[in-house]
Amino acid sequence: MLRSHTCGELRIEDVNKKVTLSGWVQRIRDKGSLIWIDLRDRYGITQLLLEEGRSAQELIDKARTLGREFVISARGTVIERVSKNHKMPTGDIEIDLTGIEVLNKSKIPPFTIEDNTDGGEELRMKYRYLDLRRNPLRTNLALRHRLSLETRKYLDSQDFFEIETPYLIKSTPEGARDFVVPSRMNRGQFYALPQSPQTFKQLLMVAGYDRYYQLVKCFRDEDLRADRQPEFTQIDCEMAFVEQEDVLDTFEGLIRYLFREIKGVNIEKLPRMTYAEAMKTYGSDKPDIRFGMKFVELNDVAKGKGFNVFDDAELVVGINTESCGNYSRKQLDKLTDFVKKPQIGAKGLVYVKYNEDGTFKSSVNKFFSQEDLKVWAEKFGANPGDLMLILSGETDAVRRQLNELRLEMGNRLELRNPEVFKPLWVVDFPLLEWDAESGRYHAMHHPFTSPKPEHEHLLETEPGSVSANAYDIVINGVEIGGGSIRIHNRELQKQMFKLLGFSDEEAQAQFGFLMNAFEYGAPPHGGIALGFDRLVALFAGQDSIRDFIAFPKNNSGRDVMIDSPSPISQEQLDELGLRIVEGES
Amino acid sequence: MLRSHTCGELRIEDVNKKVTLSGWVQRIRDKGSLIWIDLRDRYGITQLLLEEGRSAQELIDKARTLGREFVISARGTVIERVSKNHKMPTGDIEIDLTGIEVLNKSKIPPFTIEDNTDGGEELRMKYRYLDLRRNPLRTNLALRHRLSLETRKYLDSQDFFEIETPYLIKSTPEGARDFVVPSRMNRGQFYALPQSPQTFKQLLMVAGYDRYYQLVKCFRDEDLRADRQPEFTQIDCEMAFVEQEDVLDTFEGLIRYLFREIKGVNIEKLPRMTYAEAMKTYGSDKPDIRFGMKFVELNDVAKGKGFNVFDDAELVVGINTESCGNYSRKQLDKLTDFVKKPQIGAKGLVYVKYNEDGTFKSSVNKFFSQEDLKVWAEKFGANPGDLMLILSGETDAVRRQLNELRLEMGNRLELRNPEVFKPLWVVDFPLLEWDAESGRYHAMHHPFTSPKPEHEHLLETEPGSVSANAYDIVINGVEIGGGSIRIHNRELQKQMFKLLGFSDEEAQAQFGFLMNAFEYGAPPHGGIALGFDRLVALFAGQDSIRDFIAFPKNNSGRDVMIDSPSPISQEQLDELGLRIVEGES
Repeated sequence: MLRSHTCGELRIEDVNKKVTLSGWVQRIRDKGSLIWIDLRDRYGITQLLLEEGRSAQELIDKARTLGREFVISARGTVIERVSKNHKMPTGDIEIDLTGIEVLNKSKIPPFTIEDNTDGGEELRMKYRYLDLRRNPLRTNLALRHRLSLETRKYLDSQDFFEIETPYLIKSTPEGARDFVVPSRMNRGQFYALPQSPQTFKQLLMVAGYDRYYQLVKCFRDEDLRADRQPEFTQIDCEMAFVEQEDVLDTFEGLIRYLFREIKGVNIEKLPRMTYAEAMKTYGSDKPDIRFGMKFVELNDVAKGKGFNVFDDAELVVGINTESCGNYSRKQLDKLTDFVKKPQIGAKGLVYVKYNEDGTFKSSVNKFFSQEDLKVWAEKFGANPGDLMLILSGETDAVRRQLNELRLEMGNRLELRNPEVFKPLWVVDFPLLEWDAESGRYHAMHHPFTSPKPEHEHLLETEPGSVSANAYDIVINGVEIGGGSIRIHNRELQKQMFKLLGFSDEEAQAQFGFLMNAFEYGAPPHGGIALGFDRLVALFAGQDSIRDFIAFPKNNSGRDVMIDSPSPISQEQLDELGLRIVEGES
Repeated sequence: MLRSHTCGELRIEDVNKKVTLSGWVQRIRDKGSLIWIDLRDRYGITQLLLEEGRSAQELIDKARTLGREFVISARGTVIERVSKNHKMPTGDIEIDLTGIEVLNKSKIPPFTIEDNTDGGEELRMKYRYLDLRRNPLRTNLALRHRLSLETRKYLDSQDFFEIETPYLIKSTPEGARDFVVPSRMNRGQFYALPQSPQTFKQLLMVAGYDRYYQLVKCFRDEDLRADRQPEFTQIDCEMAFVEQEDVLDTFEGLIRYLFREIKGVNIEKLPRMTYAEAMKTYGSDKPDIRFGMKFVELNDVAKGKGFNVFDDAELVVGINTESCGNYSRKQLDKLTDFVKKPQIGAKGLVYVKYNEDGTFKSSVNKFFSQEDLKVWAEKFGANPGDLMLILSGETDAVRRQLNELRLEMGNRLELRNPEVFKPLWVVDFPLLEWDAESGRYHAMHHPFTSPKPEHEHLLETEPGSVSANAYDIVINGVEIGGGSIRIHNRELQKQMFKLLGFSDEEAQAQFGFLMNAFEYGAPPHGGIALGFDRLVALFAGQDSIRDFIAFPKNNSGRDVMIDSPSPISQEQLDELGLRIVEGES
């Protein structure tokens, strides 16, 4: 037996017990006559004690050969500590050692195994198994485990079946790039790894499974931006005989359950906001509603006063920042620099300070009187001491820019507390978006999303103005997931593919199985997919998903620990009937 | 709202309620003045009623346009049935219809959606979404859901974390063929899909996670035999600071928990049988111990009597079949034909009938006296009325043959009841097996399995006689899973790779990350992987795993429903830097 207890479980009640613990040497303090060893495992840390005179000399000599991260099994008696450590659960006791067995030695780790390590990103990725020993990562993966299990329990309680869909499926040209898998038994042919189980879950609805879910890996061969992974995990769900509100109710139930069970936080019923309102009020389809600073449009009061910048703009729009009326020239210049950064791209920033004495000071005093600015302040609902920040330009662009400025101000004013959670539904997304590059419509969600029934007649004439039964769940400015009510009618699905530029033959070749299935009694259905990696990160109040994945890939899609991808043998290539084309890579 | 209740939930207490149900038309019985419609969903079947005179004529006309598998939403009032059907949970009531909405039509399905369908295998695979509507498949997938959730609950209760390991990993030449995934971003390089998460779970132990599990898809590009799938699901587990008995205890705990929770069956503590004993007593490392017929070796009493067949044989061994002493000549000939089938390959079968009068009748009367046969009968523990069946030949071959005969007799005598469950552990597997073809040793389990410590000194001199800390769990003659205590020492792992024919460079290139990890404090660890598809099938008392997978592939690794694998575009190939080599396929 390698242990009788873990390193996290002994308490004052256990005094006098003979125990065996196993774990890693976290730290050794050798004070000459006294030696303390901190022994660590997943469950905690327990202090081991050796004392000159009391402990066998041979044991003391052995302890002095130990190094950090050695794996040992230690026998001894639980005793009460003289100076207790109330910060650790085992801090009342220590182990009076009677035996040490070295189970494995350790070289000196390339970085320290502490909460704050001295190892750089790349080194920690290469030695991921050592990085994973650190508390923060262990806590993250424990949270991930808890979240996945509670998700399953909730969905099970709601009569969902978890059903596994295949990983070796078929490549489709729509959407992001597929990873493909050459078939040896069917030479020259390929499987593809799923970007999502979309069509399979719809077929499960056709098959009558009524409520399906799966925590499932999905794959996208994209050029990786920061914090994207080529493989990622979804909570993938689908329900039959539902309308949009049924889906929203069910999954806000999940979100509220998870917050309650895991964070002890009660979340109120989620507000619904239309896409149009989100864009108009927050300049984003994933608004962070933990704080106000809603957009106020000023066209009616800001135009026609001779200020060309506003007069020529499609939209003049601003936010009011409370209690920032005392911003210095330097602070205001910094905000102007912020909005003028190339990745934001505003031409300038107009400010209006509402002074404590009721007067206004602005960067456009020349064009606007105190009375004009008073009217603005009323529109903003501003009070003395506030600062109004205004941008202008083409509608989509200026909304995007003001969204960035709003979030920046939220950060500066510390209004984005990671321990506060404000989820909402954004609904009524457009069905299609025009892609100037390809000169055709793309599906905003995906080609299986249904138009709102009352908009169906516009599909031929005004496709761009058709709204969809599509919805996103957004928490703290992060899109956690999205879904839609699906098309379940063959003719409508055909029409949709046509709008998206598929020929009938292409649609049949790629998705014939689904359209055929729609002819055999497909029920109305809809669903959602939640990004699980991001959900876990959000629960921990963090932004990066990488620290919530046990073995992530780097930004080149490479696992630097196992050194993959890597060349395969000529024999493997021959079996697959493939040749690598030399040339630019 | 598309439904107020499901088709499985209304009872006599619900009489007079106004309800809306949605589902599929299972059956319509039109008796002229009365029309009954059976409406089906995942939860059950509810009977809908229309009556000439009472129901609106327009509704009756509409009902007559419905066909099998139409999807409808039906409104009405719950009423008590005149003639109740006690076989169905909703059999006390029916719905007096007031409205029908056709949600979707259906073409006539290519096969009947009944428990016993008229559709052939291939047709049902092509229309899998219709096959999945049938009760037997729905029950199978419901069982699979239940088993996966209960497995997770149990392992969570035992402090296991579910941790996802990557799907895009690295190709290794050991074992079966990998499926590979070309990397676009790293041209000419490939990922591989995991045959199992073996090395990652070991790294999680090195990382201190202590107890890991995962229900995970694994992939093997093998020439498919019946009932093998290129992708399959494992319950994959690993534990640190354990010895073999700790692993066995934990996972027989899981098995007993699952049988109790899901089948209401109490399983006793699992017997342990050594590999050597299993081979000697059952001729198989996965013995079906639901019935006796243990092997009895006869070398000492059957040789040297002038019967050349026995005298020249390495092993004479038989089984006693109770109460088969009355087998006819024809029945015995059939058994002889059975063992002489090419896939079994015995040269012949010797029988000895123990007559009710205490005499013996055998096929070798010429060589053996009644006294000789009496001695045999004593060794077999046979009684009057029994039949002894004896084979002879080279040890391994004859054991394999007699195993087949024993299982055949078990089937004939109906001793293999699928509702009786007899699990056991087979332990002490050999570490290595000699492969005559490649002229080298192969790992019997895998290259990470540790030799028994007391056999380590034989690795250099007698590798073939080294036993491993490896174990299989076998239920009813089916290997459900297996595992081992792993090597956690770099030098021993290196020695193991060398024995398996790896050069130091190859070992370092393929598994360097693992051997490096062993130098930074790897704890003793071991684990197991259970075949989840097979476990579910076993719980349902069935042999074929295909009916327990929502979307399986056929024996050519093809998904005939979505028609995959399939060609990909030249553009995709170009991006990957690959060319397909024409030639024999």
